[in-house]
Amino acid sequence: MIYNPINLEKKFKKFSDYWSPKVIGEMNDYQFKLAKVQGEFIWHQHLDTDETFFVVQGQLTIEFKDGSVDIEQGEMYVVPKGVEHKPTATKECHIMIIEPKGVTNTGNKIDSKLKADNDVWI
Amino acid sequence: MIYNPINLEKKFKKFSDYWSPKVIGEMNDYQFKLAKVQGEFIWHQHLDTDETFFVVQGQLTIEFKDGSVDIEQGEMYVVPKGVEHKPTATKECHIMIIEPKGVTNTGNKIDSKLKADNDVWI
Repeated sequence: MIYNPINLEKKFKKFSDYWSPKVIGEMNDYQFKLAKVQGEFIWHQHLDTDETFFVVQGQLTIEFKDGSVDIEQGEMYVVPKGVEHKPTATKECHIMIIEPKGVTNTGNKIDSKLKADNDVWI
Repeated sequence: MIYNPINLEKKFKKFSDYWSPKVIGEMNDYQFKLAKVQGEFIWHQHLDTDETFFVVQGQLTIEFKDGSVDIEQGEMYVVPKGVEHKPTATKECHIMIIEPKGVTNTGNKIDSKLKADNDVWI
């Protein structure tokens, strides 16, 4: 039997909306999500979990209250639990987010219009 | 303050041994590990956890008892908990493994000479 790998490039071709993570895989109670981002997200935090950002294409900047990190293609960063952060991307950027299942993209900002549905598989 | 991302290419330059995962990051109780692999690993299974393989360079094949999956650069695969598998790579291949902290690379084959130390950070 031939099993199929998860091809990130092919998955990115399946959607075009920004700031709306799509699930491509699960590992135990964690999920791998792809997102296309451009512009500024909102300040938020995840009180219960770290959150990993892996940049597949482009450049992502994550602002913190005391600084920032620039993440280029082939780089990743783990935002610690409880740390306020604001992702931004000047140009369209393709990222993979790794975090526990059920995490809301806007974290503690549950009333944000940027809040996306969870468990949207592509 | 400028925070530093984790650059996979730079991390891969820090070691050359095969089948010996190096830790580059942690997210909650999970770890991101890089490994260079070539040739055949051993059949094993992880009874308590899924295991994610992401191919950064080259091609990895994971054999299962009932088939196999070929994973190319930019692709990933999640081996389910308890599934016997044997990673192989004809040529040198660079992979990122994502799994809970403390997982032994040889799984249930604790006496294998390929068993690597855990928590080796680079």
